[in-house]
Amino acid sequence: MSIQSINVRNQFRGRIKEIIRGPVVSEIDVETPHGLVTSVITTRSVDELQLQLGSEVIALVKSTEVSIAKV
Amino acid sequence: MSIQSINVRNQFRGRIKEIIRGPVVSEIDVETPHGLVTSVITTRSVDELQLQLGSEVIALVKSTEVSIAKV
Amino acid sequence: MSIQSINVRNQFRGRIKEIIRGPVVSEIDVETPHGLVTSVITTRSVDELQLQLGSEVIALVKSTEVSIAKV
Amino acid sequence: MSIQSINVRNQFRGRIKEIIRGPVVSEIDVETPHGLVTSVITTRSVDELQLQLGSEVIALVKSTEVSIAKV
Amino acid sequence: MSIQSINVRNQFRGRIKEIIRGPVVSEIDVETPHGLVTSVITTRSVDELQLQLGSEVIALVKSTEVSIAKV
Amino acid sequence: MSIQSINVRNQFRGRIKEIIRGPVVSEIDVETPHGLVTSVITTRSVDELQLQLGSEVIALVKSTEVSIAKV
Repeated sequence: MSIQSINVRNQFRGRIKEIIRGPVVSEIDVETPHGLVTSVITTRSVDELQLQLGSEVIALVKSTEVSIAKV
Repeated sequence: MSIQSINVRNQFRGRIKEIIRGPVVSEIDVETPHGLVTSVITTRSVDELQLQLGSEVIALVKSTEVSIAKV
Repeated sequence: MSIQSINVRNQFRGRIKEIIRGPVVSEIDVETPHGLVTSVITTRSVDELQLQLGSEVIALVKSTEVSIAKV
Repeated sequence: MSIQSINVRNQFRGRIKEIIRGPVVSEIDVETPHGLVTSVITTRSVDELQLQLGSEVIALVKSTEVSIAKV
Repeated sequence: MSIQSINVRNQFRGRIKEIIRGPVVSEIDVETPHGLVTSVITTRSVDELQLQLGSEVIALVKSTEVSIAKV
Repeated sequence: MSIQSINVRNQFRGRIKEIIRGPVVSEIDVETPHGLVTSVITTRSVDELQLQLGSEVIALVKSTEVSIAKV
């Protein structure tokens, strides 16, 4: 199914640099122009989306999940 | 309290470009090298952290909150 | 941008039945075959996606966000 | 402990169809009248709740965790 | 509906000390032995659960939502 | 990097009592003066933060992740 647009405001486009597979969840490291973004998703999703090294993806984050720290 | 280090792997450093205040939660838009990162936090936190336009902050996201989409 | 596929496994398709607008976040109630699914997203996203009563949408939930209770 | 009621608005009742056990987290697939709902919880919780195939459960999702996509 | 048990491992029992109502979401501050625990839920849930100052409640957090910082 | 202050309002200080390592994520059980707090983080973070039994840590939870149940 193709999704036209999604409300998730924070989108980071890049390529998969590393996949650490586990039996239930896997870690996906996405190389973006400005650094690495790390995601943990189900291993089943990794297979269903046929994700592999080099795949072009978007890492998405809902705004309510973003914390703010002062430096 | 000063925190030495935090497990949140995705950290986006930048400056606050816009604050939309609500009675309970506020939207904080942070200009980062990755582009705009949007966060929704409690308005009480905005005040306690004394966040304002131009404040230097880090937007943090836990890896389990990051989804992956294929393009 | 059109997204081909997304890892979010739980997708509930339906139509928007009610929108409660707030200054920062809004509540979106989606009528689906599963019953009513309620979402809280930024009001800015409501406007950017041009959501309104009757809009056809998919409510998506990441598996790591789903809790299990025994009845 | 019995909980009277909970603020989590999105509740999907069904039976467990599949459990994928991992050392730390497990995937629980719940068959509801309107499709599969997938959850990732700690394996310790799976054991403490004595979840098994066929167990009657409710999958719960907080409204702030639900994203909206336009189709 | 009465829920027998829930997989959410982190449960903080206490009494509501303050409610800040907004049009869409409200902040609920719960006084617990751990100190103050703050929650943001939909205002509709506040009304449906008939929450008020002094109400005895449990604040629940899914383990995957808990971050760890070193001090 | 040292973080001055963070908006995450719910902070539980304690010592690590148990670590269950998995290939991708690990469970961290933190003993606080008022009970156990459980967290699931990436195993890579466990290693990067050099977490071990007895480490003094803070468990942090964003307010929007806290649900409320009535007892």
